[in-house]
Amino acid sequence: MIALFTDFGLEGPYTGQVKAVLHRTAPGVPVIDLFADAPAGRPKPAAYLLAAYGAWFPPATVLLAIVDPGVGGNRAAVIIAAEDRWYVGPDNGLFELVTRRAGTARTWEIGWRPEALSASFHGRDLFAPVAGQLAIGKLPIEAPRPAEIGRHPDWPDDLPEIVYIDRFGNAMTGLRADSLAMGARLAVSGRLLARARTFSDAPPGEAFWYENANGLVEIAVNAGRADTMMGLAIGSPVTILR
Amino acid sequence: MIALFTDFGLEGPYTGQVKAVLHRTAPGVPVIDLFADAPAGRPKPAAYLLAAYGAWFPPATVLLAIVDPGVGGNRAAVIIAAEDRWYVGPDNGLFELVTRRAGTARTWEIGWRPEALSASFHGRDLFAPVAGQLAIGKLPIEAPRPAEIGRHPDWPDDLPEIVYIDRFGNAMTGLRADSLAMGARLAVSGRLLARARTFSDAPPGEAFWYENANGLVEIAVNAGRADTMMGLAIGSPVTILR
Amino acid sequence: MIALFTDFGLEGPYTGQVKAVLHRTAPGVPVIDLFADAPAGRPKPAAYLLAAYGAWFPPATVLLAIVDPGVGGNRAAVIIAAEDRWYVGPDNGLFELVTRRAGTARTWEIGWRPEALSASFHGRDLFAPVAGQLAIGKLPIEAPRPAEIGRHPDWPDDLPEIVYIDRFGNAMTGLRADSLAMGARLAVSGRLLARARTFSDAPPGEAFWYENANGLVEIAVNAGRADTMMGLAIGSPVTILR
Repeated sequence: MIALFTDFGLEGPYTGQVKAVLHRTAPGVPVIDLFADAPAGRPKPAAYLLAAYGAWFPPATVLLAIVDPGVGGNRAAVIIAAEDRWYVGPDNGLFELVTRRAGTARTWEIGWRPEALSASFHGRDLFAPVAGQLAIGKLPIEAPRPAEIGRHPDWPDDLPEIVYIDRFGNAMTGLRADSLAMGARLAVSGRLLARARTFSDAPPGEAFWYENANGLVEIAVNAGRADTMMGLAIGSPVTILR
Repeated sequence: MIALFTDFGLEGPYTGQVKAVLHRTAPGVPVIDLFADAPAGRPKPAAYLLAAYGAWFPPATVLLAIVDPGVGGNRAAVIIAAEDRWYVGPDNGLFELVTRRAGTARTWEIGWRPEALSASFHGRDLFAPVAGQLAIGKLPIEAPRPAEIGRHPDWPDDLPEIVYIDRFGNAMTGLRADSLAMGARLAVSGRLLARARTFSDAPPGEAFWYENANGLVEIAVNAGRADTMMGLAIGSPVTILR
Repeated sequence: MIALFTDFGLEGPYTGQVKAVLHRTAPGVPVIDLFADAPAGRPKPAAYLLAAYGAWFPPATVLLAIVDPGVGGNRAAVIIAAEDRWYVGPDNGLFELVTRRAGTARTWEIGWRPEALSASFHGRDLFAPVAGQLAIGKLPIEAPRPAEIGRHPDWPDDLPEIVYIDRFGNAMTGLRADSLAMGARLAVSGRLLARARTFSDAPPGEAFWYENANGLVEIAVNAGRADTMMGLAIGSPVTILR
């Protein structure tokens, strides 16, 4: 299975062209849209989101992960093997948390370049062919070389910021819920939020935090939008009160 | 074939995870996105939409239908067999019109629970595995038990309200067009609308109603947006003048 | 492979129903969403977009292209064979540039009509079954007849207007980059834009033009939105300064 984690959107031409390449390279392999609206051009919040959601997929899944503001510049293209899954994408911090949380991770730099490499769409021209080859168990066309990816030791293990806002206005943080005490409260935009088990456990209109279905601390309002109610955006800080 | 009718959206993580489960449970079965923007958290208008659009699919289709504001609470999870199709989702009224319009409908409660059931994402953890099993002709992992679903006898056979607004600003109602006289007019937001056969039969800028391609009464404006022109939203009432 | 080029959107019911028909008509053939947000109801800008993006697909691809404001009226339904690809859709100018740029193009009018043809959704009822039949190498149910499509000799070979704005705010024009001199500048909304190779070659916040990954002149801002910064919309004019 190949899972796409990008900021490309689905309606325009980008994801479709990536999928066309994947279907040709790895015929019959299911391609799943995991996120098409990952934090646009922001590898840091995207890295926490990817680590939380990539871990949900079964062994041997190839995660094609592209949040790549430096496309066409000199950042490297990499393959990561972490916890029995493959990750393919740009070396810009996007794989920092995946790598850090894995017991052992191996990393390679992709030396191969296609005959026609556009300056702005490496997702289609470079990363998709490599991901497709991995998905069918073939090494990429030219052997990648073991490499160290750029590391970001200053990034925390859990990020006390909003990393994603979903279509319902729920705001995911970069905090794993199991890093918080059960009774922990969060201070967000001047409000104090208690934990709830799920939406229907909170009174309508009340803000709360809960452990979402992929283990992240998420801020929500039963029958309301947390983002507009609290003025939240990607990067908004949250504070843990114990 | 499995058709998805949800309010999950496509770009974020929800539909993709559901599809990942379906591909693993029912490999090779096509999965169709019917609606990813069904009325969010509103089973009543969604029920009229589902009945109109589900009926278009061929026999043996599994409709995985999830508009589930009470997820994690005590509403039941159900399977419905109606007019040679399967429906899987929460028992909150979403299947009221499907059931009512079917000559005979059989209903079961899903007793099975997965080892890991999140509090907020039964679409992925509970409903998708059951829908996948149905799609490959297997009974769900543990036998569901025949059950009565909760009924809503007070809901009308046809709902004189807006139930969906599409990307063009066209507003679908919960009225089946064949329930109206050919010459019927509609009063909507203080305007009187006549019937047209299709867009190109109405002068540009003029509002009209027509029978849409799935049999519903839909309010539209040729070369314009009915929603903004008339201030329509899901739940806006329409009145039939005969 | 079947590629969809429409203004239907993905979340609502239209693309899903088209795909359901394609899966039944051409089981196992991959269906790619190329554009679901082509210029809504505007065949002219869509024609330049289609010509640029259709040409990227491999031989034998079927491009199901539907931007069809006259649906239900008397425009013809056509099949075009151009440069080893198939195009299926309405005869309203949408295929003007595909046809003009092909060395030789053959065109047929689709005489077949399905038993149930809705007035407003020929994409599902008429075009999708024909595209599916083409994709599996069968002639459509009834032989199409060779025909001339309506031509638009007054449309330029390259359109100096915005034809698409993507989710990042980048604005594609109907100009092929290889029709411009390398040092050409563009005048857009009172600004003078120089060429850059890609985003990372321009200073943050600066507008530029570049050759996008499908050969079109595209107006962009590094780490910004060109559409809002310059007030661009589909149809906005650009002027080439040599």
